Amino acid sequence: MTETLQNQLKFLAIADEMKNIFRQTTLIDGSRLENDAEHSWHFALMAMTLFEHNAIEGVDINRVLRMAITHDLVEIYAGDTPAQDIAANIGKEEREQEAADKLFALLPEEQAQEYRSLWEEFDAMATPDAIYASAIDRFQSMYNIHLSGTGSAWVKYKATAERVRTRMLPIKTAIPALWPWVEDVIAINIEKGFLQK
Amino acid sequence: MTETLQNQLKFLAIADEMKNIFRQTTLIDGSRLENDAEHSWHFALMAMTLFEHNAIEGVDINRVLRMAITHDLVEIYAGDTPAQDIAANIGKEEREQEAADKLFALLPEEQAQEYRSLWEEFDAMATPDAIYASAIDRFQSMYNIHLSGTGSAWVKYKATAERVRTRMLPIKTAIPALWPWVEDVIAINIEKGFLQK
Repeated sequence: MTETLQNQLKFLAIADEMKNIFRQTTLIDGSRLENDAEHSWHFALMAMTLFEHNAIEGVDINRVLRMAITHDLVEIYAGDTPAQDIAANIGKEEREQEAADKLFALLPEEQAQEYRSLWEEFDAMATPDAIYASAIDRFQSMYNIHLSGTGSAWVKYKATAERVRTRMLPIKTAIPALWPWVEDVIAINIEKGFLQK
Repeated sequence: MTETLQNQLKFLAIADEMKNIFRQTTLIDGSRLENDAEHSWHFALMAMTLFEHNAIEGVDINRVLRMAITHDLVEIYAGDTPAQDIAANIGKEEREQEAADKLFALLPEEQAQEYRSLWEEFDAMATPDAIYASAIDRFQSMYNIHLSGTGSAWVKYKATAERVRTRMLPIKTAIPALWPWVEDVIAINIEKGFLQK
């Protein structure tokens, strides 16, 4: 077996840790927190399933799926940083860049570059693919939080309606057909006391 | 919101159940069984990462990723059927066809047809995409079982080396560079008493 293949297998074993990194969002049934592997899969399925509603020109769904699969890998070393936890977000970028250096070093150069670029592009939210991907990523969280009926991360971090609305803006751009749903869900969760006005 | 979009959202909420369907394979750290959502994600990441070692002409990696994401959805209604449990495999096809009827009925016709076809093609293992996908699917199980060091499903179902070798044959065709590893792992696990000779 070549060293390249050996190192790729090591990378794929380390990647198994995604199943142990828990987010602040629960499963829809509210039974437990979901992990990064499950979230990435659900994100990919949502990106495929809702693609006909995408309103942004030039989105390549195949690259979006690759983003969905790889976008949280750096959390294996950097941990999950809850979007609503303002303090935890300080130093996030540096932590994740160091994590990426360590994790992707196992891959052949071209592949390391591809995975790192997909993640950086996703995070920067400046290309059509990344905007659509971010819209789905954020919708996945919001959908799970709302359907769980517990307020989960929103309650824990005393999230405001305004902060959630701002965070969901990629949905308005990428999947405008979902925007009325976003506004409804915000209103319902203010009513329930899960979101601060 | 259109009825189409409403039904797609319903489908995506039901799909969350993949996170509650447990396989016979554990995480690599042996801490617990892995679920279908995690497995599907790991399968997709492996398919991307190992694609340069694919030896079959005409494989479309983008279709393989869609297969990885959708191939276990029918288990939401049909449950997981362990490969090594011979009795449980009786009636599997009928159970899964009924599950597919129920699950995909929520999607627009063209999309329902696409997801169903991807799953049927994967299961039939007769096209280049499906052979590569099956090789990765089977490798993912074997890799996790072996690295967990517990024998997990092989011990539970008293699996024979011959049955495992036969099940892994798509790897020989699609990723021959991994075949020596398959033979080594079988030998090691016979030695450990996890596989019957």
